[in-house]
Amino acid sequence: MNLANIRIVLVNTTHPGNIGAVARAMKNMGLNQLVLVAPKIFPSEQADVRASGATDILLGAQVVDTLEQALADVQVVVGSSARGRHIPWPVMSPRQLAAVAQCATDQASSQVAIVFGREDRGLTNQELQLCHYHVHIPSVEHFSSLNLASAVQVIAYELRMVALAEGDIELPQWGVDWDVCRATHQEQELLFQHLEQVLITIDFLDPDNPRQLMPRLRRLLQRATLDQVEVNVLRGILTHFEKKLASVSERDE
Amino acid sequence: MNLANIRIVLVNTTHPGNIGAVARAMKNMGLNQLVLVAPKIFPSEQADVRASGATDILLGAQVVDTLEQALADVQVVVGSSARGRHIPWPVMSPRQLAAVAQCATDQASSQVAIVFGREDRGLTNQELQLCHYHVHIPSVEHFSSLNLASAVQVIAYELRMVALAEGDIELPQWGVDWDVCRATHQEQELLFQHLEQVLITIDFLDPDNPRQLMPRLRRLLQRATLDQVEVNVLRGILTHFEKKLASVSERDE
Repeated sequence: MNLANIRIVLVNTTHPGNIGAVARAMKNMGLNQLVLVAPKIFPSEQADVRASGATDILLGAQVVDTLEQALADVQVVVGSSARGRHIPWPVMSPRQLAAVAQCATDQASSQVAIVFGREDRGLTNQELQLCHYHVHIPSVEHFSSLNLASAVQVIAYELRMVALAEGDIELPQWGVDWDVCRATHQEQELLFQHLEQVLITIDFLDPDNPRQLMPRLRRLLQRATLDQVEVNVLRGILTHFEKKLASVSERDE
Repeated sequence: MNLANIRIVLVNTTHPGNIGAVARAMKNMGLNQLVLVAPKIFPSEQADVRASGATDILLGAQVVDTLEQALADVQVVVGSSARGRHIPWPVMSPRQLAAVAQCATDQASSQVAIVFGREDRGLTNQELQLCHYHVHIPSVEHFSSLNLASAVQVIAYELRMVALAEGDIELPQWGVDWDVCRATHQEQELLFQHLEQVLITIDFLDPDNPRQLMPRLRRLLQRATLDQVEVNVLRGILTHFEKKLASVSERDE
């Protein structure tokens, strides 16, 4: 496990104290990449106080405007989620996430982002759909919302447990060395845009009434965790399809 | 795993906000027995705010003056500890603790107490010596001190993981049903006092220079987790020994 490749992303955090507490939890467990997406208040004295010595993590934190920016160069994106979203998405426990992160960082040198939402209402559906997987901490049903730093603490703890016990964990997938780099978030997004465009072109997707078509396709492709060659192949297919279509319509004219 | 048999004990907590955050972490994970040993400030509005809805745990919290009172009817005591204490004590990871707690609550209907110390300096050596085991969260060496609620969160999470996966965990000991109840803390303390008295009587232990003799004997006996019959047998031996000694000195007179 390469903990240096793991990035904690906090989206629209309201209380700066929570950002500080997250920094402390991260440093306790040996993580150091913190990215803040449009935090309400940062930097902040309250964050420094709650960081309780982990100010280096706060000083090194990257602040960006959008989640897209935080994820651009990342290969594996995991969103923290409560149960029962609109469309079911692959959900892992923190322990499974740690195993997945180990494979991703060791076997593919991937960057892994773990994304946490707002204190009061988590991540939006749209944000959750940018993720390959969701991670759910198994809390009780009627009191399920953990404090932000507590949630980061549990997940960072599981990552550290795997880092300390290298080789002890059973790999849930990718049980072999991979010969091609996994695709970055941006490469995948370009694929999804391309796919959507083609689906509109062929009238399969109605932009005025898209329903859940794209989320379902995203879920499917992201679950597979595409590598760069695979992305190129899929985009090649889409491009060829478009060319064919164009040549046919020319002939019709 | 019977989570209802698990008690979180906080010793001399300074910040009431931390008590509230602990209550929230407990409730998230399905724990509800909270015992506060001489908290600095409690009840408190700050505790209520940080409990974020777990006020039932705070209302039900038992407040006592001494750690002894918190532990009197408990069979298994685990103290939260940083590394490197004076005398080495059996140390478990949170995951091993969860397995031990499962055995203790399922096979012996034991009460298990998990004890957390002060925010700034944890438990004293004396307090740690009341414990059968210590639990250490594997933090990084030079930034090892977790926030109190974060530490409770990690341990409560491991307990819940075992509770959810009943039967999946490998038992580190007590791999069979036990036919006798484990001894309570009080029964053991009476044994230790009895033992100490006898050791002084026979001039093996110098009360003016006790060194680490009693801590070492405690550690040994607590590691074995005595049941009630065993405690009775040991006390019977001590009593017989005392009687014998008394009858010999009478004869000498």
